[in-house]
Amino acid sequence: MQESYDVAIVGGGVMGCAIAYQLTKAGKKVVVVERNTMGSEASRAAAGILGAQAEIDEEGPLRAFALESRALFPAFVEELKTYTGIDVQLNQKGVIKPARSQEEAVKLKHKVMEYRDWDAEVRWLDRDQLHDLEPLASENLVGGMYLPNDGQLHAAYFAEALAVVCRNVGVHMKSYCQVYRFLLDRNAVKGVITSAGTILAEQVIVTSGAFTKHLLPDVQVYPVKGECISVCADRPLLTHTLFVDEGCYLVPKAGNRIVIGATKVAHDFSKQVTAGGILFLLEKAKSLLPTIEQTTFEDSWSGLRPQSGDGLPYMGEHPDYRGIYVASGHYRNGILLSPATGKYMADLVLGKKVPAYIHDSFRLDRKSVDMEGIK
Amino acid sequence: MQESYDVAIVGGGVMGCAIAYQLTKAGKKVVVVERNTMGSEASRAAAGILGAQAEIDEEGPLRAFALESRALFPAFVEELKTYTGIDVQLNQKGVIKPARSQEEAVKLKHKVMEYRDWDAEVRWLDRDQLHDLEPLASENLVGGMYLPNDGQLHAAYFAEALAVVCRNVGVHMKSYCQVYRFLLDRNAVKGVITSAGTILAEQVIVTSGAFTKHLLPDVQVYPVKGECISVCADRPLLTHTLFVDEGCYLVPKAGNRIVIGATKVAHDFSKQVTAGGILFLLEKAKSLLPTIEQTTFEDSWSGLRPQSGDGLPYMGEHPDYRGIYVASGHYRNGILLSPATGKYMADLVLGKKVPAYIHDSFRLDRKSVDMEGIK
Amino acid sequence: MQESYDVAIVGGGVMGCAIAYQLTKAGKKVVVVERNTMGSEASRAAAGILGAQAEIDEEGPLRAFALESRALFPAFVEELKTYTGIDVQLNQKGVIKPARSQEEAVKLKHKVMEYRDWDAEVRWLDRDQLHDLEPLASENLVGGMYLPNDGQLHAAYFAEALAVVCRNVGVHMKSYCQVYRFLLDRNAVKGVITSAGTILAEQVIVTSGAFTKHLLPDVQVYPVKGECISVCADRPLLTHTLFVDEGCYLVPKAGNRIVIGATKVAHDFSKQVTAGGILFLLEKAKSLLPTIEQTTFEDSWSGLRPQSGDGLPYMGEHPDYRGIYVASGHYRNGILLSPATGKYMADLVLGKKVPAYIHDSFRLDRKSVDMEGIK
Amino acid sequence: MQESYDVAIVGGGVMGCAIAYQLTKAGKKVVVVERNTMGSEASRAAAGILGAQAEIDEEGPLRAFALESRALFPAFVEELKTYTGIDVQLNQKGVIKPARSQEEAVKLKHKVMEYRDWDAEVRWLDRDQLHDLEPLASENLVGGMYLPNDGQLHAAYFAEALAVVCRNVGVHMKSYCQVYRFLLDRNAVKGVITSAGTILAEQVIVTSGAFTKHLLPDVQVYPVKGECISVCADRPLLTHTLFVDEGCYLVPKAGNRIVIGATKVAHDFSKQVTAGGILFLLEKAKSLLPTIEQTTFEDSWSGLRPQSGDGLPYMGEHPDYRGIYVASGHYRNGILLSPATGKYMADLVLGKKVPAYIHDSFRLDRKSVDMEGIK
Repeated sequence: MQESYDVAIVGGGVMGCAIAYQLTKAGKKVVVVERNTMGSEASRAAAGILGAQAEIDEEGPLRAFALESRALFPAFVEELKTYTGIDVQLNQKGVIKPARSQEEAVKLKHKVMEYRDWDAEVRWLDRDQLHDLEPLASENLVGGMYLPNDGQLHAAYFAEALAVVCRNVGVHMKSYCQVYRFLLDRNAVKGVITSAGTILAEQVIVTSGAFTKHLLPDVQVYPVKGECISVCADRPLLTHTLFVDEGCYLVPKAGNRIVIGATKVAHDFSKQVTAGGILFLLEKAKSLLPTIEQTTFEDSWSGLRPQSGDGLPYMGEHPDYRGIYVASGHYRNGILLSPATGKYMADLVLGKKVPAYIHDSFRLDRKSVDMEGIK
Repeated sequence: MQESYDVAIVGGGVMGCAIAYQLTKAGKKVVVVERNTMGSEASRAAAGILGAQAEIDEEGPLRAFALESRALFPAFVEELKTYTGIDVQLNQKGVIKPARSQEEAVKLKHKVMEYRDWDAEVRWLDRDQLHDLEPLASENLVGGMYLPNDGQLHAAYFAEALAVVCRNVGVHMKSYCQVYRFLLDRNAVKGVITSAGTILAEQVIVTSGAFTKHLLPDVQVYPVKGECISVCADRPLLTHTLFVDEGCYLVPKAGNRIVIGATKVAHDFSKQVTAGGILFLLEKAKSLLPTIEQTTFEDSWSGLRPQSGDGLPYMGEHPDYRGIYVASGHYRNGILLSPATGKYMADLVLGKKVPAYIHDSFRLDRKSVDMEGIK
Repeated sequence: MQESYDVAIVGGGVMGCAIAYQLTKAGKKVVVVERNTMGSEASRAAAGILGAQAEIDEEGPLRAFALESRALFPAFVEELKTYTGIDVQLNQKGVIKPARSQEEAVKLKHKVMEYRDWDAEVRWLDRDQLHDLEPLASENLVGGMYLPNDGQLHAAYFAEALAVVCRNVGVHMKSYCQVYRFLLDRNAVKGVITSAGTILAEQVIVTSGAFTKHLLPDVQVYPVKGECISVCADRPLLTHTLFVDEGCYLVPKAGNRIVIGATKVAHDFSKQVTAGGILFLLEKAKSLLPTIEQTTFEDSWSGLRPQSGDGLPYMGEHPDYRGIYVASGHYRNGILLSPATGKYMADLVLGKKVPAYIHDSFRLDRKSVDMEGIK
Repeated sequence: MQESYDVAIVGGGVMGCAIAYQLTKAGKKVVVVERNTMGSEASRAAAGILGAQAEIDEEGPLRAFALESRALFPAFVEELKTYTGIDVQLNQKGVIKPARSQEEAVKLKHKVMEYRDWDAEVRWLDRDQLHDLEPLASENLVGGMYLPNDGQLHAAYFAEALAVVCRNVGVHMKSYCQVYRFLLDRNAVKGVITSAGTILAEQVIVTSGAFTKHLLPDVQVYPVKGECISVCADRPLLTHTLFVDEGCYLVPKAGNRIVIGATKVAHDFSKQVTAGGILFLLEKAKSLLPTIEQTTFEDSWSGLRPQSGDGLPYMGEHPDYRGIYVASGHYRNGILLSPATGKYMADLVLGKKVPAYIHDSFRLDRKSVDMEGIK
């Protein structure tokens, strides 16, 4: 007797769970198949920044989609709390991108003006204003861009809450189940062959993040390992997230904790945290917040962010196989983009009308994408 | 240069922190001295039941005080969330004391009638009603007493939140600091001698729980070790806390977790969790909720509850030393009693008028207490 | 630039490493490809019993091979110590199979006589002799079979030592590398396609244990999950391994530790340790060694033993693909069989003459095996 | 019924256990009283360097005692292995003190000449010789002093083995037992008052390390916290211990691990590892062994070394109380000095003749010591 579902989702991270949740609420019979435990990969490793403005510098479909997703969080985390009891520590105090030189300040001021066209709350902080907001920030910071509408949450709790909410609304959650390959009838998917046997499904959505190429070698997604650490202070050191472009952010969490992320190691599937990674993070963090030296070191970990060839996520049906969908390649913005991805992918699979800008920008066979695959 | 405070509190568990918080809000300069890290002993090991009715069978001052304290939780946990970002998972769905035999049912029904005199929401559940509320409970349970106004929370998060809120309102928090003895001027306290030197204080409050006798050999408090385990299910198994008198309770937590407590090992200062303790808990838990066998084992730990000679806590000034106060001996009800203890002890130390029933029932030189100490 | 090797080994457990070590010593250029970290699956989860007589009841090729492998340990662990600094705690004090009833005693006495035909050191222990050897064993044990030439070691240390010795003699060790599929030229292997790209190799050996079917769906290997716990005593409780057939053994380790294994959950790829599994192990252990109740609970874990359709391991070349070899399906005897498997598989791959009894009994297309695969 | 012993030892670290072991072998009835678990403080946190020459620069009684103790290790670790099964990874490959400048080289060469007067194996390594021995050492190292007779071991295993050997030879080991004060009859000790009640003993030896002042406020011992980290490499990076005077050493362990120690934070009883401490260690380690950046970060921890006022340990009877002995203040050399301390203190307590140089140099009321205590 083979199990049969409307939709099988491969990958139990925030993407897979967010989609499964929406589809189940829409009445579908859904299974999530995860080779490890739910939310155990990139999802739980994220620093949790909801940086629609901090992370996505350029205007375009990705930022539009990110802003849409960011707006979903307040209601979504309430919903998760209600169904799971888990508080994901949504923090809406904003992100500051500090300038460490006049040169950086100039660039950031331009960005402030650009943002203010459509977000009047964005503003430039001069040195004093910055230190008024963050009195312990380094004296070397000459100012900063304040993005009050970006936020952050506790990514591991969010990933757990998404998995639990799925269980609790009736999604079939199969942990420790490896998908070997698709079950195909000509070019139409009929299910997946897994370590637990064949699972029949009319539609299959691959949300395997950095591991997407395992099943779909022609989808250009590769891992960019990010190492993170967390420290705990004996008083509040930081109120807002501090975010520097070339890869260091300080994210204040409940209980006077700070998450410091993250390195970028492309094409590395290992999850090992290197001594060099920690050294890099501590040096950067000290340059932004010198008092970090006195905090207690708590933990270190890493995650494999799924990066795509052109920097945009893949969301859509596979051009060669009917019924195979992909939602992957969200890189550093997986947490941020998960609520909107859940809604969009559910609508797509359900055959609802979807916004053209999303469909066209993120579909798998978009122009910029060479489906022949990369390295 | 010696540090000087209005009040020094010995012990950084929920009692010490709750008192420190109230005194600081009242304008006092307070230090909490803890030999390990804050909240690292009994406070964080508790199952977190707020069982004013489930735990305290007999009418009397302890129950009155417990009911008062229980009522403080909703506002208090909001306050903690605001100041610390930590959600302590307050669950107000109530406690069920199940009957495993007609004999137990008779006794519990008497208790229901007793409670209904003053709490109309308490009610008897017959077998079907019990299984309506908890469909997975053992078929062997013949009914139960439902206490909808008892509750529970996540004790480790609560202990952490209390320590963090103290730091964040300005309490001086000294971790890893052992108090060797009191600094006395005749029979009046002047401070404490610690591993970090002398700390001057006009008043000293000892909240050392099971370790109270270290400083105050004549205060009859001894440890009763409680071993606990936690498991995680792949769906919600339990909504209400199940509580059986001779030492087994199942407490449902966020994320489909269940905490199973607790053994009672008197006069044992060890923190080791024994194989026999786990065997006992699993057997008991299985008899209440058979499906517990299929859950994932997560963790085991223990805590040393401070028990007093007559079963009542000590809260008051030491009869022989002016300025030395004690708040200890709260046994299994430390989490429950901490908010009211914080308020009461603060009032006492501040010289405010306090309720006579508390003062007289819990003072150190009450009739029932032999200050000569026990083994 | 593709990497090119003489031999690629898929799987970094004790089998893969033991083979890689022998091949490298024979001058081959070898790579071990492991999807997680080396030795992180069944190898490190084993209780480490070297039970050629305790585990393998029946005469035949498996026992012959096991006895041969057991004899290799003393020299092999010395070699590992020299090259890695790791002591694997080889214990050669023997295994006792206790009888809990006269019926069991009769069976075991027959087995003693059978063994004594070729191992004069095997002997029956009557009740008193058993309790002389193990004074704390349960009074309910009426005697036992003493197998002084069986032994045990610390499996996690052994697995680590094997991985380290491979690194240190020059094997290329690729962690966090998933093999997607074989690179084939008609029916001859040319390498493997992995998450880290294509790896060329003239021969490929699959030692993926319970995960063998991922690459070779027609090789009948399925997981049998075994849950284990460890406890620590405050004095030596046990000198010899106690081994009961239906799935409980107590294995004394250095530092007064005891490993208690193991449940048997067939066709379960999950690594979760269940509450029911721990309950089973503690009940069984208590029935053999009542004082186990007073020990400190230390840890719990599980491993997926690779079982084959007919209970014999697969060791040989794949009948359909030239250059693809398999060494898998060693079930509960992986640690025991690893040294001999290392030597045998290396000889096979090197084209040396190998013993006919091994070749014929364990080859993949042996009579008893239906290559059509099982569920 | 009070327990009665010949000797009670306060503190279950390597000192307490080494002494208890010797006294028990000499026929005494001994109890070790430890407030936490055995070996859980400085003993297990050490990097394990046996640096009689590397650590103790100056001629004198401490070095003489250290050389004597170092010579005891080979036989002692064999004995531990036999009784406990625990291999403590004794490594006798020597220590190198590298020179990072010509100035340092000059000083170290003087030291080499000094040592060669009595240890012909000590020698200077020029740049090439250093890199022949340690090919991955930094190019910036211009040479080094090679001390082939210093060594190292795995301190946590050593501390555990000492506790286990004590249990196994019949020492009474009381964990989780806090000593409140001495039981005195005038100025003669009769036992100790503990959290587990009164323990009678004719002699009491205090081996409480950094916590010695708790019981003996006039003995000048204070904590110097040392933070350490460990990393793991994928091949052997280092063969000899690299030791730089101002507080960084790299100690190669089994399995291609390296322990990097240690900061020095005086008068700090906290066990927290700070972000600043890790940053310091990683920077130093990178300057000695650049490839350390590529290793996997494994763990961080700290220990409180007991430092004395004049830098020499205290070993002897208390001048004011008959029967109270102290063995404390061994600072960074506790592991190294433990075997000789065990023998010496046992002899002293047993009333045997002891070497005058030890007795006079380390007695509590030596000239250089101000028994009035320090801060």
